[in-house]
Amino acid sequence: MLKVPEHQVAGHLAIDGKLGPLVDDSGRFYKPLQGDGRGNKELAFYESFSSDTRVPDHIRKYFPVCYGSQLLEASNGSGLLHHLVLQDIVSSHRNPSIMDVKIGSRTWYPEASDNYIQKCLEKDRRTTTVSLGFRIAGLQLYEGKESGYWRPGRKEVQSFTVYNVRSILRRFVSSNSSIGNENSDCSFAPSIYGRSAGILEQLLELKAWFEDQTIYHFHSCSLLILFDKESVSKGSAPVPEIKLIDFAHVVEGKGVIDHNFLGGLCSLIKFVSEVLSDSKESSIKDCVESEKPGICTDNGNCQ
Amino acid sequence: MLKVPEHQVAGHLAIDGKLGPLVDDSGRFYKPLQGDGRGNKELAFYESFSSDTRVPDHIRKYFPVCYGSQLLEASNGSGLLHHLVLQDIVSSHRNPSIMDVKIGSRTWYPEASDNYIQKCLEKDRRTTTVSLGFRIAGLQLYEGKESGYWRPGRKEVQSFTVYNVRSILRRFVSSNSSIGNENSDCSFAPSIYGRSAGILEQLLELKAWFEDQTIYHFHSCSLLILFDKESVSKGSAPVPEIKLIDFAHVVEGKGVIDHNFLGGLCSLIKFVSEVLSDSKESSIKDCVESEKPGICTDNGNCQ
Repeated sequence: MLKVPEHQVAGHLAIDGKLGPLVDDSGRFYKPLQGDGRGNKELAFYESFSSDTRVPDHIRKYFPVCYGSQLLEASNGSGLLHHLVLQDIVSSHRNPSIMDVKIGSRTWYPEASDNYIQKCLEKDRRTTTVSLGFRIAGLQLYEGKESGYWRPGRKEVQSFTVYNVRSILRRFVSSNSSIGNENSDCSFAPSIYGRSAGILEQLLELKAWFEDQTIYHFHSCSLLILFDKESVSKGSAPVPEIKLIDFAHVVEGKGVIDHNFLGGLCSLIKFVSEVLSDSKESSIKDCVESEKPGICTDNGNCQ
Repeated sequence: MLKVPEHQVAGHLAIDGKLGPLVDDSGRFYKPLQGDGRGNKELAFYESFSSDTRVPDHIRKYFPVCYGSQLLEASNGSGLLHHLVLQDIVSSHRNPSIMDVKIGSRTWYPEASDNYIQKCLEKDRRTTTVSLGFRIAGLQLYEGKESGYWRPGRKEVQSFTVYNVRSILRRFVSSNSSIGNENSDCSFAPSIYGRSAGILEQLLELKAWFEDQTIYHFHSCSLLILFDKESVSKGSAPVPEIKLIDFAHVVEGKGVIDHNFLGGLCSLIKFVSEVLSDSKESSIKDCVESEKPGICTDNGNCQ
């Protein structure tokens, strides 16, 4: 039984008779192959990537598994259509908070048409892509059983400023995310961004690969950042994850590193590091102010 | 006594009645303040930079010392003109080989006019700026007493491809640089690019700062790479140097890293690393082929 993904935060949605991806109950994600060649380019990327022995094993975990393609009834009722069959990344999460971050200070590639370049450039300048080296393309933030998800609309997301992005990266790991802005407590920052195998460590592992790899240039590709706030709140071990998605505009690296992706990734890393170090500072301050004799633990609590 | 700089490899030259920089015998470089506000912007940058306590001491050595500004007779005979008074970087070198590398995959900045952006973008796409994240803006290569310098013309430099750039980075550190291309022996690579305090180590030190600093964004800024081939050949210690120059388009970082500069710098680092590791491999091969029983030393010789 195929259905519309519950946790898709960006891209075309399979609602109101439109074409979009579908998921099943077994953890697979079916993405319709776009007709203008982009779908085939993405399929070709997955095929090349999965068989490329130059990609180290510890990097593969940052990419969804691809199970090839399959003919399926399209969500818009237009009949049978080829779909990419991918791992449904969010299926293992219960109430995932998700950020879709498009990495790079340009989303176009040198070989593209002038028209395409101008269209991308215009959007890159309008959003934080040029200024920050990345933009948030969509997000959902789980705020608890009662309030459910905060999911800003497409227009709101596209109008995010540098200030908004910084604020959202704080809010994303706050227990009081609903109030937003400066008052976010960032109480989950140590357990989500920090700690061993946290988001920051994963980003740094990816960065080390991008400093070296000259196989692919990932244009207009997104980094999904996701975790379960529920499990964090309840004290069970959260599994913060990052995954790269959307490879319709990947081109060959031809011996040059993907400096566009790398620069944006470093910018994101700097932002995440700052949220983390701010949260550590403020938890030290809290410990001091509460006059507890202990020290602050890695998860930001006083001991 | 002011004169036209002997070793200027890019930018406007003070010849044929044109406006350009001058040097004196005491190691100072006089750069005319460009009238369209760029000169004042560069002076303002130097003033801000020199008094900014956030800039660590070990980073200051990568910038020319600035001695303020001075009214001087302009080289084009137009009368008195304000000049930036800077350290003449090459004055301490006898027969310097110099590369002027403009860093970044875009030379424009978000706040610029549409016209300026389109002009820069066109040149960035035409050169290796977009593809490599940097472009060679000029160079001179000392080839010995008899042949003197190889100094390709502006048009040739502007038409450099990725292939040419890679080849020049090899040729730059070769004892047989005059023949160029694949046959470059890269015999100076270990002593210029490699070794402690060599070019690669300096680039990495600069990179670490750029991963963190959010004070300035260096648009259209150049990295000069220079050394004395003569002293290398004669066995005396060479002093390979890197220096950042041209700050007319520096803007405030506003809490964001200069991901554009950083990405290009990482791309250059990868290229330099490759020349270095190729040269080490080939010197190992040479040792093996010459059946010398020894091992290869850091400077690429057999022991």
